[in-house]
Amino acid sequence: MIESIRVNKKQIQIIDQTLLPQEEKYIHILDYKSMIEAIKKLRIRGAPAIGIAGLAASALALDELKHKASCKEDLLLALDEIENARPTAVNLSYAINVARDFVMNNAFSPDSEYLWEQTLQLISEEENYCRLMATNGVKEIYHGQAELRILTHCNTGSLATYGDGTALSVIKALAKKTKVIVWADETRPLLQGARLTMWELMKEGIECYLISDSMAAHTIKTKHIDLIITGADRITTNGDSANKIGTLGLSILADYYKIPFYIVAPSTTIDRNLTRGEEIIIEEREADELRCIKGISVAPAKCQVFNPAFDVVDNQHITAIITDRGVFKQPYDFR
Amino acid sequence: MIESIRVNKKQIQIIDQTLLPQEEKYIHILDYKSMIEAIKKLRIRGAPAIGIAGLAASALALDELKHKASCKEDLLLALDEIENARPTAVNLSYAINVARDFVMNNAFSPDSEYLWEQTLQLISEEENYCRLMATNGVKEIYHGQAELRILTHCNTGSLATYGDGTALSVIKALAKKTKVIVWADETRPLLQGARLTMWELMKEGIECYLISDSMAAHTIKTKHIDLIITGADRITTNGDSANKIGTLGLSILADYYKIPFYIVAPSTTIDRNLTRGEEIIIEEREADELRCIKGISVAPAKCQVFNPAFDVVDNQHITAIITDRGVFKQPYDFR
Repeated sequence: MIESIRVNKKQIQIIDQTLLPQEEKYIHILDYKSMIEAIKKLRIRGAPAIGIAGLAASALALDELKHKASCKEDLLLALDEIENARPTAVNLSYAINVARDFVMNNAFSPDSEYLWEQTLQLISEEENYCRLMATNGVKEIYHGQAELRILTHCNTGSLATYGDGTALSVIKALAKKTKVIVWADETRPLLQGARLTMWELMKEGIECYLISDSMAAHTIKTKHIDLIITGADRITTNGDSANKIGTLGLSILADYYKIPFYIVAPSTTIDRNLTRGEEIIIEEREADELRCIKGISVAPAKCQVFNPAFDVVDNQHITAIITDRGVFKQPYDFR
Repeated sequence: MIESIRVNKKQIQIIDQTLLPQEEKYIHILDYKSMIEAIKKLRIRGAPAIGIAGLAASALALDELKHKASCKEDLLLALDEIENARPTAVNLSYAINVARDFVMNNAFSPDSEYLWEQTLQLISEEENYCRLMATNGVKEIYHGQAELRILTHCNTGSLATYGDGTALSVIKALAKKTKVIVWADETRPLLQGARLTMWELMKEGIECYLISDSMAAHTIKTKHIDLIITGADRITTNGDSANKIGTLGLSILADYYKIPFYIVAPSTTIDRNLTRGEEIIIEEREADELRCIKGISVAPAKCQVFNPAFDVVDNQHITAIITDRGVFKQPYDFR
């Protein structure tokens, strides 16, 4: 299994996803600011994976700050900084809250052992969630079909999690049951579908075709796609689901073409503080992500850009939300 | 005005669109095979512009072949070759049929004068069509609105035609009447929106924002887009319209968000031999267009790709087809 992150005796390595698929390189993360940089630059990405990365960064931060008189105050500031590295995925907030609770506890002493243990535990939990999502997804989707033609978006595999993935774990598990063919959106601007999902699918030996995001409608129509399946970065209690930009359009296409649209996410992706998608903060990223591709200019140098990183799928367009804790449908009741 | 092609005393120059927006360079086209290469590589593109390019290429071909004994036979083969450079746009077929009729005429003599004249006449006609489309588009769309928020796809401007463009000529004319803000899809894989439309809009001083194709749904929803407007490459007699890949998805989004979806094209884009969109041949292009961007690999080197260059919008999703000959609506009767 591809590991998005390795934590071993307080040593952290991540596979640098910005180099994939041309180069498979693990880099050492030696301090919390490097992890913030890695999260911001998407060297590590995917809601569950950046949750783990954030918790590991908090352990690193404590080790860096433990000899300072202002350790507690500085650590809380560091935690804010880690949490703000990317605003949309709930997992990062969740992980940082574990660290924050620890720091705010009356018995706080500057020993990082607990945070390292929590990081390892989260890794183990995420791996387990992946297994459960795969099982629940197969139960929901597979009813003896001779073939499943699947469209997916962004990367939701081992690289986005720790384990087999969210939506991609379901795809991988389905491929063990029946013939699966996947069409993967390239997922502009950062091409996670082209670079990462195609790479993972090819490693798994699953038949797959790369398309541009703009080809989804024509592909659904002419290749007779059976279902669309994606991950999510934050789900509100009514079922509205934020995911990589482009997912909203896919959900409307699924509705139009009357094919099921599934979200797969660990139950920790559900933000119990938010009741509707409108409340989710959508990260807007820098203009050059669209103006340049791998450093090469593909648009007028100073053109204005609108670059939201996520959009929100309306609960009414989701056939089911597949989680480790089971499969949820309208009306969503996640209790 | 930007000229996509210049024909002057049997000398042909085209602005090499693959170099835009970084470099504004006109290149000489000295023989018909170079024009075929230019059409295939999208150095010149856009249905009306490649119609002109095709007719100019046929004049070049005749000049090249006129001293051969097998001139007529060779010329007919050359015409087939030019016509097949790109299969979807009707304008190329239309232009080549003008040349073919001339060759097949009993009075055929290997003098290219007629074809050069026809080329100049087509340029003048296309320019006139652009003016008429702009006028008809403004009449259809503008009713005193204080602001128009417009989403467009691909490039439909001066570069795609000879004149101000198809959809973009309407946008330019609307901007003379009221405040216009445009969000331009980058239009993967070849990025005509990012490279060409943004460049033209900025030259015109029209407020514009670049988005990726995957951002269209979120942009329509959050930026309160008033209308979507695109060109077309081939329109069948029932109103079904082939256009750059991604247009189908936009038309479904327009339907979902209840905003008008306009097609703008010269009346010559209507293919009177075809009655339904299913009959249109969709060009599939090479895999590396998706696997690489400007020569840089962005996907696994040998991954499989589905790369259709066009899709077909269902007539029921088109609010109106704006042409030089007037505005057509359901049920389409183009006679």
